[in-house]
Amino acid sequence: MTDKILSISRRTRSTPFTRRVEAAGVKGYTVYNHMLLPTFFDSKEADYWSLCNDVQVWDVSCERQIEVFGPDSERLIQLMTPRDISRAVVGQGLYAPLCDENGGLVNDPVLIKFADYDWWISIADSDVRLWARGLAHGLGLDVTIREAAIWPLAVQGPKAEQLVTRVFGDEVPGIRFFRSKMLEFQGKAMMVMRSGYSKQGGFEIYLNDPDLAEPLWDELFDRGQDLNVRAGGPNLIERIESGLLSYGNDMTYQHNPFECGLDAFIDLDADIESMSLPALRQIRGKHENQLVGLVFDEAVNFVEFAVSADGRKVGDVRSQVWSPRYQRYLAMAMMRRDYLREHKSVKVDGKIGNIVDLPFDFDAILKEG
Amino acid sequence: MTDKILSISRRTRSTPFTRRVEAAGVKGYTVYNHMLLPTFFDSKEADYWSLCNDVQVWDVSCERQIEVFGPDSERLIQLMTPRDISRAVVGQGLYAPLCDENGGLVNDPVLIKFADYDWWISIADSDVRLWARGLAHGLGLDVTIREAAIWPLAVQGPKAEQLVTRVFGDEVPGIRFFRSKMLEFQGKAMMVMRSGYSKQGGFEIYLNDPDLAEPLWDELFDRGQDLNVRAGGPNLIERIESGLLSYGNDMTYQHNPFECGLDAFIDLDADIESMSLPALRQIRGKHENQLVGLVFDEAVNFVEFAVSADGRKVGDVRSQVWSPRYQRYLAMAMMRRDYLREHKSVKVDGKIGNIVDLPFDFDAILKEG
Repeated sequence: MTDKILSISRRTRSTPFTRRVEAAGVKGYTVYNHMLLPTFFDSKEADYWSLCNDVQVWDVSCERQIEVFGPDSERLIQLMTPRDISRAVVGQGLYAPLCDENGGLVNDPVLIKFADYDWWISIADSDVRLWARGLAHGLGLDVTIREAAIWPLAVQGPKAEQLVTRVFGDEVPGIRFFRSKMLEFQGKAMMVMRSGYSKQGGFEIYLNDPDLAEPLWDELFDRGQDLNVRAGGPNLIERIESGLLSYGNDMTYQHNPFECGLDAFIDLDADIESMSLPALRQIRGKHENQLVGLVFDEAVNFVEFAVSADGRKVGDVRSQVWSPRYQRYLAMAMMRRDYLREHKSVKVDGKIGNIVDLPFDFDAILKEG
Repeated sequence: MTDKILSISRRTRSTPFTRRVEAAGVKGYTVYNHMLLPTFFDSKEADYWSLCNDVQVWDVSCERQIEVFGPDSERLIQLMTPRDISRAVVGQGLYAPLCDENGGLVNDPVLIKFADYDWWISIADSDVRLWARGLAHGLGLDVTIREAAIWPLAVQGPKAEQLVTRVFGDEVPGIRFFRSKMLEFQGKAMMVMRSGYSKQGGFEIYLNDPDLAEPLWDELFDRGQDLNVRAGGPNLIERIESGLLSYGNDMTYQHNPFECGLDAFIDLDADIESMSLPALRQIRGKHENQLVGLVFDEAVNFVEFAVSADGRKVGDVRSQVWSPRYQRYLAMAMMRRDYLREHKSVKVDGKIGNIVDLPFDFDAILKEG
């Protein structure tokens, strides 16, 4: 496909940062939760090196926060996820699959216990608000569910801590991964969490006042000049190298969390009331597919995303990219487990690719030659 | 904003028609229900004249069909909409707002009674599947809810009936508006309905076999050569001139159907079990805003979409376009009713615009001068 223009309208919502994103020279967007998400500024590869070497500011307002508060809030959140949330503390984030009564993936948000009886679901790309409201209405739960007036801004990269500390102060380095503090910017307290959709380290600032969007953006760029701060966004190369999954790409509502390797986030034996657990207990070990990595020495053309063997379709490529660092073509593919049991490689486009576990282990991959 | 590239991935789903759409030279897409929707091929204006003069084929696969079947299907559909669906006949489509327990708009689909106890919700851009599943689970309803393997293809324009008749046969002209017939293409029966997102007339073909997508597309183009058939998509100019609303643009979940002028699709006094009716009965007449048309003699620059008067924000522009036919700049705006009661015009960007009811009445508008 050649490049196509994105037709932008009110439906593809802008954010309080969009004017600054445009001024920074954004070249590509995607639409995520009905909102603009910048995908690259210079080029995906140049952006990649900037992210890995320095620090970037990302407008991830599209990580909408679905706020669930009220007496039954914790009960509803627990119903929606098979991960045990009972030991979460205020200010903590938990990566957690949301699954329906069949075990199908509805979303893979970070759940944030913002306060007692006040949870934020920091969502990937599906309308979790509608699901939650349907459940709450049907079950007669005493909760309020709304899309909160919050616009996350991510600061990512090895110099992110330095930059965020300059803007939010000395409490920043003490924040542990997936923990947060309420810190002030221009007199307004907002949540700052150590998190973000890269493995380069960094923070997400949960902006709660749109009038502070441009001042915050400007201050990060002013204070970060010597750190080579740049505008960026979730980077396709970095996120695939790091094995970060993307809902809608690597997994959909037609997949279950075992197929996606999310076993560690499911508390199958917990004594919790979660609507997906009965189904997940049945499915476990019997699922047909598994998300794996494929590694090729050169770029590969997947026809209609298919991976075939002996005239049979054995898998489906979900994400793919050339890694400039490792000089390999990387793919994430949903492959049939019966094929995986007997094969360590696939042949696509005339080229042999090794099948590996996710996340990619590049030490081992490079040793293979 | 200058043009931006749309970053396309598996998450922004392609359709069985995408290869043909690309071959036809699509230049712009939007993302709608997590799927690619072509927005223009030549230019929005050239596409507009082709649509109004001849016939176009649109890949509207993104109109996903949420199928609800089983004993409680009709009960669930009725709960979701304040429009009385009890008299619908098999094969009929009903434009119907979906509203939550607060009266907020969840979507504005066409509901199709495909068979007894088998409804299709032909959705606008929100995940109605999740809401329906949440409600069904919470209420313990006996229904199955799924995104059906259906990819609608629209044929629109004054020559659409001619073209669809050539491909689907002589039963086509007898199909009334929002009625359908099961008609065969290459031996496979599929639903053909007189409908579509333009006022130029036409049909939607509910393709139910992806392997027939390209043969169907090709046949429409082969048989339509002398009719000047072109590839197209929902056209911004035509739909605004025609006063067709767009969910996410002209109305959102923060609006209620009265604000959007959808009163005719709400059966306030019907003896039906609809979750929004109690709230809607309370809201009616007391809503603060009203969607209206604004008509300017020349193009207007709305700063941050605002309509202001005497330093106060009195409205919010939702859609806007230059009409090449009427030589007017047209906008749909959500305006405060207290302002509307006392004013017939607004001043934006130094230009006076007349406030008119929707849909636009161009005879009256042109008479005004």
